[in-house]
Amino acid sequence: MWRPFFQPYHLIIVQDGDPRKTITVPDGFDYELYNRNDINRILGPKAACISFNDSACRSFGYLVSKKKYVFTVDDDCFVAKGPSGKEINALEQHIKNLLSPSTPFFFNTLYDPYREGADFVRGYPFSLREGVPTAVSHGLWLNIPDYDAPTQLVKPHERNTRYVDAVMTVPKGALFPMSGMNLAFNRELIGPAMYFGLMGDGQPIRRYDDMWAGWCVKVICDHLGLGVKTGLPYIWHSKASNPLVNLKKEYHGIHWQEEVIPFFQVVSLPKKCTTPQECYIELSKQVKEKLGNVDAYFNKLADAMVTWIEAWDELNPSEKLSNVSAV
Amino acid sequence: MWRPFFQPYHLIIVQDGDPRKTITVPDGFDYELYNRNDINRILGPKAACISFNDSACRSFGYLVSKKKYVFTVDDDCFVAKGPSGKEINALEQHIKNLLSPSTPFFFNTLYDPYREGADFVRGYPFSLREGVPTAVSHGLWLNIPDYDAPTQLVKPHERNTRYVDAVMTVPKGALFPMSGMNLAFNRELIGPAMYFGLMGDGQPIRRYDDMWAGWCVKVICDHLGLGVKTGLPYIWHSKASNPLVNLKKEYHGIHWQEEVIPFFQVVSLPKKCTTPQECYIELSKQVKEKLGNVDAYFNKLADAMVTWIEAWDELNPSEKLSNVSAV
Repeated sequence: MWRPFFQPYHLIIVQDGDPRKTITVPDGFDYELYNRNDINRILGPKAACISFNDSACRSFGYLVSKKKYVFTVDDDCFVAKGPSGKEINALEQHIKNLLSPSTPFFFNTLYDPYREGADFVRGYPFSLREGVPTAVSHGLWLNIPDYDAPTQLVKPHERNTRYVDAVMTVPKGALFPMSGMNLAFNRELIGPAMYFGLMGDGQPIRRYDDMWAGWCVKVICDHLGLGVKTGLPYIWHSKASNPLVNLKKEYHGIHWQEEVIPFFQVVSLPKKCTTPQECYIELSKQVKEKLGNVDAYFNKLADAMVTWIEAWDELNPSEKLSNVSAV
Repeated sequence: MWRPFFQPYHLIIVQDGDPRKTITVPDGFDYELYNRNDINRILGPKAACISFNDSACRSFGYLVSKKKYVFTVDDDCFVAKGPSGKEINALEQHIKNLLSPSTPFFFNTLYDPYREGADFVRGYPFSLREGVPTAVSHGLWLNIPDYDAPTQLVKPHERNTRYVDAVMTVPKGALFPMSGMNLAFNRELIGPAMYFGLMGDGQPIRRYDDMWAGWCVKVICDHLGLGVKTGLPYIWHSKASNPLVNLKKEYHGIHWQEEVIPFFQVVSLPKKCTTPQECYIELSKQVKEKLGNVDAYFNKLADAMVTWIEAWDELNPSEKLSNVSAV
């Protein structure tokens, strides 16, 4: 199903779990495949920051990519159809979102003002109409919505059938739940903050990899004057994961998010942090300082955040020189 | 066109312009009609706060209404049809919006979580899922979009044909351009802040009545822990006003909004303000203090804001005792 949409692009496949298993990639794709042995070989001791047996392992792909735009998608996501019945080219829409500016400083009631047939409405300040560069494009899901385990348990048969024909900027200062199911980003602008954390084997938490990344990314985008868009494109999410298994994976996260989110809502980065790397290192310090007392896990996570940036800089030495201006 | 939708409700018609003209209201409606003479008689010297020859005159209707929910609509707005071809019952949707909570403290990517077929997504804090009371429901427009004069001039033929099937909360801390064309609100929660300012005859500005109200309303809703929703319902906006006439009316507003919006973005109300009236009086003081130097007009406007609250309290004496808790 994805062939016509993925074939023009370069694929990075991060194989999770047992590295002795062989993944067969169909013919005709331009790809790199990494299993755990590759990750350990390439990163050495720093491989400890890459999760095992969890979707967070995908961060490794962001690290080794050499592309400006990255699209990441879950293995139970398929091509959705729009209201006209036509298959949706999710990548095309993500690229449109990333290539057009964002408007985080003032809300536009007609949604994305840069879309054909739309604009800024009366009362929108003219000084803000240039917008800011878009760092993240967060797509949505038809069929199985991205619910947590308790909601899955309460509403096992709920399906998302509503196609909302909109893209919008998440306003500055507002956090959002970033799902990694159907996500694209500008790796040059925000890549170093796209760390999906320590999850899975050996960790007390799963299924919060993308959420963690989303909170960090949003806070850093707000600080650097970058935009986050959400809405189109939709993918078709076919397989609801088991809510009882999910509940076990999520338990700590559901509990901890009540303290973690207020932390991210008030966190402030100093002006001297002008690159995503600098912002991320600063954030790791504050995580340790403010969340370390919630659970010792956050100390480990804060250390892994630093390791992640060290790994990023090691694999992307030229980027260290580039700068993004802080706003 | 509106008959089946308006007939069950009580109408307040505020007649603008020459009071000697007679407005004929079709049979079968339960209504009150006020012209300028009525306004002057009822408010005495306080009538000076009600604009003349501008759509801002509608504020008078909010003042004299005894209803909990108010819907206000422009005279060039008609019943729109949804994607199925069925006529949209705008009032029904506004009431749905106002009766369901808002979620200003965290963004939900599947839009209004209280809508049928939707919910809070994974990663949404459970402590915030009760939401807060909704004070404002801001509806949108098919056909002629609510553009300012410069955009009308640049895109004279642009029509809004995109039906976005969504309702969403404007996040806390984000300002939005509130159009009075298709707007509903809970008069008990936010009525005293729904003042459309001093516009029209004798004033240097027009077409910013609803914008001014929207900035004040949003700041006060944020302070009092109330919600503002935008999106559905759509109405059909038929007549584009003349862009050259609009440019003249808007000129000062376009200029001033570049200083007014930053003011509203940082304004802070003290904790002791726990009612919309108290918030509004405090806001009037800060308008005078911070915007008085932009133009003398803002001193007049600040005084009119006080007069408005005096008029509100005079006509609604019982409300002075009720309290809304500050968050």
